[in-house]
Amino acid sequence: MPTWVPVADDSDFPLENLPFGVVRPFRQQPRVAVRIGDHALDLAAAGIAPELTARASCNELMAARRGLEVRERAAEVLCGPSRPDLLHHVDDVDVLLPVQVGDYVDFYSSLHHATNLGRIFRPEGEPLLPNWRHLPVAYHGRSGTIVVSGTPVARPRGLVPDPRDGTPRLAPTRALDFELEVGFLVGGPHASRIAPDDADAHVFGAVLCNDWSARDIQSFEYQPLGPNLGKSFATTISPWVVTLDALQPFLIAPPGQEPEPDPYLRTSRPWALDLRLEVARNGSTVAATGFGDLYWTFAQQLAHMTVNGATVRAGDLFASGTVSGPRPGERGSLIEQIADGTADEYLADGESVTLRGWCGGGKTQHPRIGLGEASGTVVAEEV
Amino acid sequence: MPTWVPVADDSDFPLENLPFGVVRPFRQQPRVAVRIGDHALDLAAAGIAPELTARASCNELMAARRGLEVRERAAEVLCGPSRPDLLHHVDDVDVLLPVQVGDYVDFYSSLHHATNLGRIFRPEGEPLLPNWRHLPVAYHGRSGTIVVSGTPVARPRGLVPDPRDGTPRLAPTRALDFELEVGFLVGGPHASRIAPDDADAHVFGAVLCNDWSARDIQSFEYQPLGPNLGKSFATTISPWVVTLDALQPFLIAPPGQEPEPDPYLRTSRPWALDLRLEVARNGSTVAATGFGDLYWTFAQQLAHMTVNGATVRAGDLFASGTVSGPRPGERGSLIEQIADGTADEYLADGESVTLRGWCGGGKTQHPRIGLGEASGTVVAEEV
Repeated sequence: MPTWVPVADDSDFPLENLPFGVVRPFRQQPRVAVRIGDHALDLAAAGIAPELTARASCNELMAARRGLEVRERAAEVLCGPSRPDLLHHVDDVDVLLPVQVGDYVDFYSSLHHATNLGRIFRPEGEPLLPNWRHLPVAYHGRSGTIVVSGTPVARPRGLVPDPRDGTPRLAPTRALDFELEVGFLVGGPHASRIAPDDADAHVFGAVLCNDWSARDIQSFEYQPLGPNLGKSFATTISPWVVTLDALQPFLIAPPGQEPEPDPYLRTSRPWALDLRLEVARNGSTVAATGFGDLYWTFAQQLAHMTVNGATVRAGDLFASGTVSGPRPGERGSLIEQIADGTADEYLADGESVTLRGWCGGGKTQHPRIGLGEASGTVVAEEV
Repeated sequence: MPTWVPVADDSDFPLENLPFGVVRPFRQQPRVAVRIGDHALDLAAAGIAPELTARASCNELMAARRGLEVRERAAEVLCGPSRPDLLHHVDDVDVLLPVQVGDYVDFYSSLHHATNLGRIFRPEGEPLLPNWRHLPVAYHGRSGTIVVSGTPVARPRGLVPDPRDGTPRLAPTRALDFELEVGFLVGGPHASRIAPDDADAHVFGAVLCNDWSARDIQSFEYQPLGPNLGKSFATTISPWVVTLDALQPFLIAPPGQEPEPDPYLRTSRPWALDLRLEVARNGSTVAATGFGDLYWTFAQQLAHMTVNGATVRAGDLFASGTVSGPRPGERGSLIEQIADGTADEYLADGESVTLRGWCGGGKTQHPRIGLGEASGTVVAEEV
């Protein structure tokens, strides 16, 4: 049954997607919506689970694991008698951060990215450190500075050795970078020691993540405890949480792993995601790559993150790390693009970066299921 | 004016302290209380700021920066006509986690601890890395696994190279350690780029933190992005948040810093805290040290954490890192005690660790202001 809402053929958001987000109509309270085409369906106004949707974040909906049921009821409304009063055009509302993020864990799971960075930082040694093929390396990022697409990103300051005399001095970063990543949001009750083949019971959906990085600040500060101020200033996510239910047709077999990982990381179900990714700089695509061959799948990441007994809770975010492919034109960060000669400079004030990602569409047998975009413009440091 | 509540002479919690916590009387809702002696005063029942205190966490009170006013009103009740109906003996209630922690940042600010660990991990090189004296090194920890004193700590599993053949295998840690730390909780509105001399406008109070660590898991995983599963399984904090107002008499001049730090880290007010610290293992004190000579003060830590534009919000926690003194008997972690011969073994199942901290008391001119204790017992891995 078709929907009465107009949806462009190449939209990221057909009836089969219906991702969740939070919108605030002019002078009204924020509420949870699903997106279709260029519109947001006001779920509480439609009488759909108002105890979960008349809220300023998707957290309660995610905790209750009622995403599939709510999307099915939304689809009934969208295919029933026309109800334009329940729709907001997305240009007419503020589209807010969809979730109050609890813990944010950022992985480092692209073999090509980790290899490229190893070559840049340790040109004499093996590009991959001894642990990399045994476990999905990760660190905790700052959840309080996760912002929604469209939020300007102020150039961070930090302590960087002065090239003239080596003295560390506070200065605006001269090496502001982006990182093309995919993030996964946890749903359901608190859980720990999650078997990787149970990941779909604990992952609510996916967003795009730009883990903005100041390479000069990061390289001075990061030993021995990892990145801090070089990344903590901002992480941009896309506003529409695409559910794992909607992405299910695009789950594929992951690449082989050598050596075979420890049993707690072994899977028997297809947990790679056949997702296309692009990053545009000032409107021009500067990298395009695929997510399907990421070395460590999100199911393995979730299993690893909880194998020590640590709990996850609804609203926790874990991200892939920069996604890069093996060839020039497939690198998801400027540090790699500068190293391979496909970019000349880090980001200047006024430059914008937009991540996009989608499954299916085009000549495939599936409708396009898109993640939308995560976009941000660099602005001068606030003084 | 004396209080009608009995308070032992050596109590951590005289009328001058009145720290905040959350208690749950039997079959009732949690609520915010102040502690005096062995009792908790039910603030909402006393009619004191119920919009902030009839809550399951101190976050709203901390955000509103009304700690001083609420403590003053509580002191009036505690010094007025006797009202035993407003008190709960702390043994009669569940004492809960006092705060919903947003971001948890763990520093590494003890010169003696960092030097000791540098000698253990890099015996050939300089014990301190080049950045250490220029900025307070830190990483983000896991906020979702912060637990209140008394919560059992399950031995974590993780991937550790098998000594027989070097193959990493999942196993319960054989190197479970504690870390004696002091944590600071942020209050007030969202803020960034905080000048260190404004720290008292943004720090609500202090707690004890045990940043439990699995050294074998940590040492295999931590390069290049820092600790993750070696620490993410649990962090124990003390339940009573001692306000910076109550600690103000014990702020003292910090130790000198060489080289002088960048201007954004310079202070003109006394930001070191003259606090005694102890850690007991199975009831016996195994280390005692002072917090007053920590190299980087909490004011500098807060300034550093926000200088890049990152915001802090009420409920964020930042901790000192392990506090150690220069002599044996002053080391706040087992890895240091084993290295200097004052301990033989890491923690076994069934062992308990208790941190304590206090200012004043004894022969000093100030009443004792204590942080209480952060205690936990190791239990076998849950299977």
